[in-house]
Amino acid sequence: MAEIGPNTRLRASPFYDATVAEGVTAFSPYNGMLMPTSFGHLDAEYKRLTEGVALWDVAVERQVQIEGPDAARCTQVLCTRDLSTCQVDQGKYVAMCDHRGVLINDPIVLKISETCFWLSIADNNILLWSRAIAAERGFDVVITEPDVSPLAVQGPDAENVVAAVFGDWIRDIRFFWFKHAEIEGIPVKIGRSGYSKQGGFEIYLMDGSRGTDLWNIVREAGEPWGIGPGNPNPSERMEGGMLSFGGDTDDNTNPFEVRLGEYVDLDVPDDVIGIQALRRIAAEGPTRHQLGVVLDDTSQFQSHAIWYDVSVDGQVVGSMTCGTYSPKLDKVIGFLLVPVSVKPGDSVVVHKHGNPVPGTACELPFV
Amino acid sequence: MAEIGPNTRLRASPFYDATVAEGVTAFSPYNGMLMPTSFGHLDAEYKRLTEGVALWDVAVERQVQIEGPDAARCTQVLCTRDLSTCQVDQGKYVAMCDHRGVLINDPIVLKISETCFWLSIADNNILLWSRAIAAERGFDVVITEPDVSPLAVQGPDAENVVAAVFGDWIRDIRFFWFKHAEIEGIPVKIGRSGYSKQGGFEIYLMDGSRGTDLWNIVREAGEPWGIGPGNPNPSERMEGGMLSFGGDTDDNTNPFEVRLGEYVDLDVPDDVIGIQALRRIAAEGPTRHQLGVVLDDTSQFQSHAIWYDVSVDGQVVGSMTCGTYSPKLDKVIGFLLVPVSVKPGDSVVVHKHGNPVPGTACELPFV
Repeated sequence: MAEIGPNTRLRASPFYDATVAEGVTAFSPYNGMLMPTSFGHLDAEYKRLTEGVALWDVAVERQVQIEGPDAARCTQVLCTRDLSTCQVDQGKYVAMCDHRGVLINDPIVLKISETCFWLSIADNNILLWSRAIAAERGFDVVITEPDVSPLAVQGPDAENVVAAVFGDWIRDIRFFWFKHAEIEGIPVKIGRSGYSKQGGFEIYLMDGSRGTDLWNIVREAGEPWGIGPGNPNPSERMEGGMLSFGGDTDDNTNPFEVRLGEYVDLDVPDDVIGIQALRRIAAEGPTRHQLGVVLDDTSQFQSHAIWYDVSVDGQVVGSMTCGTYSPKLDKVIGFLLVPVSVKPGDSVVVHKHGNPVPGTACELPFV
Repeated sequence: MAEIGPNTRLRASPFYDATVAEGVTAFSPYNGMLMPTSFGHLDAEYKRLTEGVALWDVAVERQVQIEGPDAARCTQVLCTRDLSTCQVDQGKYVAMCDHRGVLINDPIVLKISETCFWLSIADNNILLWSRAIAAERGFDVVITEPDVSPLAVQGPDAENVVAAVFGDWIRDIRFFWFKHAEIEGIPVKIGRSGYSKQGGFEIYLMDGSRGTDLWNIVREAGEPWGIGPGNPNPSERMEGGMLSFGGDTDDNTNPFEVRLGEYVDLDVPDDVIGIQALRRIAAEGPTRHQLGVVLDDTSQFQSHAIWYDVSVDGQVVGSMTCGTYSPKLDKVIGFLLVPVSVKPGDSVVVHKHGNPVPGTACELPFV
């Protein structure tokens, strides 16, 4: 393995120093920043997330701020989900598509005010995309990347830890709702959200100079619950059937293919980008779908670099887009992107570097 | 330092296996791929480039292919340089801007045919940007990322090596012109180009399955000239005054500020993106400019993660955007992005992690 560190094209997170002090051992670039992907103790990291509480540097979830008189209209044009009922302090998970109806991001939209929205984005340059659309449509908005960096507290004890820091009032925050708060002079927004199925919160740091301070405050408050460092966990997210945009999607994937159809409202206005293509796709029915797969193999697929070919009856029909060991199932599991003719229960073969591995397709999520 | 390797969101180059076999020690992510940034022998890599010949995996220079009846019009709208005289097989270095006149890329445009252009891009999602613009303007084009991966042969002996592989006819290729060729069944385009001031060629591999083969062919042909692995070299590119888009530019940098004014044609059609803003900026005169700086310091700035503050007479006025040791000058050099009031010859202070380092501003390039 080769080395990586921040450079002028690859910014450090406000929590970078804190994660280095915690012994981060691997990064993945994401939105032009470094995201910790391991602290060297995979079993402990999984256990902390599923049985205790983990602290994640997810500053790479950059915010795209759309502000101005046309902010609501511009944000709606960018998102295929109806946002007309979205209230201030509410978040909504949305599918963003290009004009072909191809998924280009799956952010959480946060309504900050009637004239200000944040897109808390997955890995793609949505700042550039949004500016292109807003300028071409002549919307009266200013689109920027504000100084906002999420810190995730995830796991069954996350609520206790966040309450210990901010007070018991945070227990009343509903799923995907946010509240503004301050701790030791650090402005934050606290949301019940996060890239796991374990429940938890994301604390949106709004002063990049205070990253280490915020990390340490939460770290110390979490000691009674055995908090420790972690990161979006491949095993847990696959068990829970969570999509990795850009990992499980390609340059031709529409939301219906990857179980995001419920986040597409076909009756949004005609000027919403991609909606006309999506109406056609919905009418015709998608040709591919995402399934799980359980492999008859005990070796790991973790960190695999590519999509593996998947065959049925000796014919390559699609791909395995991710794979890893599942502690809960004590099996190697993965996601398939295959024709809709492949059904749960079907036998498939995954071609791992030329080595055929048999397995069985299944519904998602696994657990 | 932490580790990095390919994953499903960070593709391996077709030359990845070859660079691993050569002992690559560091990568930087670039356009969603891994670019080798060191093979562990900085002095040898610099010497090879400036006195011999070096082989670089620059597959990260992805191509954005714009094809269709409106390809020429679409490409012109995306670029602030007049492309009306560009001929088939010719390349042109261009400034791409957003609607604010802010630089978003500095690709080489290759005219493949009257209805097909490639943008050989620096680090930014120009595929996404171009699709947004083309769809919003209703251009009849299809925009894709073709299977094309440049391999650079750079240095004084580059021409001899490329001629040894392809024949002496390549000596007639003019700067930024390209020719189609084939070697052992591998289709390529050969251009006289590359991110160095040493002269050289880029061989655009057009079959991603043949990366190792092409690497080895050039590697073996180059043995008499002592060819070896390398990568875009920080010292050489700074000595030569070459811009690093995204490294030396920020979210507010226009082409005039970073010596790219000669690649902006103010009389291109009004519908070229950014041209109206650039006409205003040109009329008013840019407020910042890019200069060199020579520091009174022998320690290295290499791999520095951030822009350093630069002060004049005790006031912070701008930034040092890059810095490294220059073997040719036997000095630490860098680039400044500072108000136009700062002139060559002025004394400045660069604040390196709180440590003030005096230096002198100068014209670029250094050599």
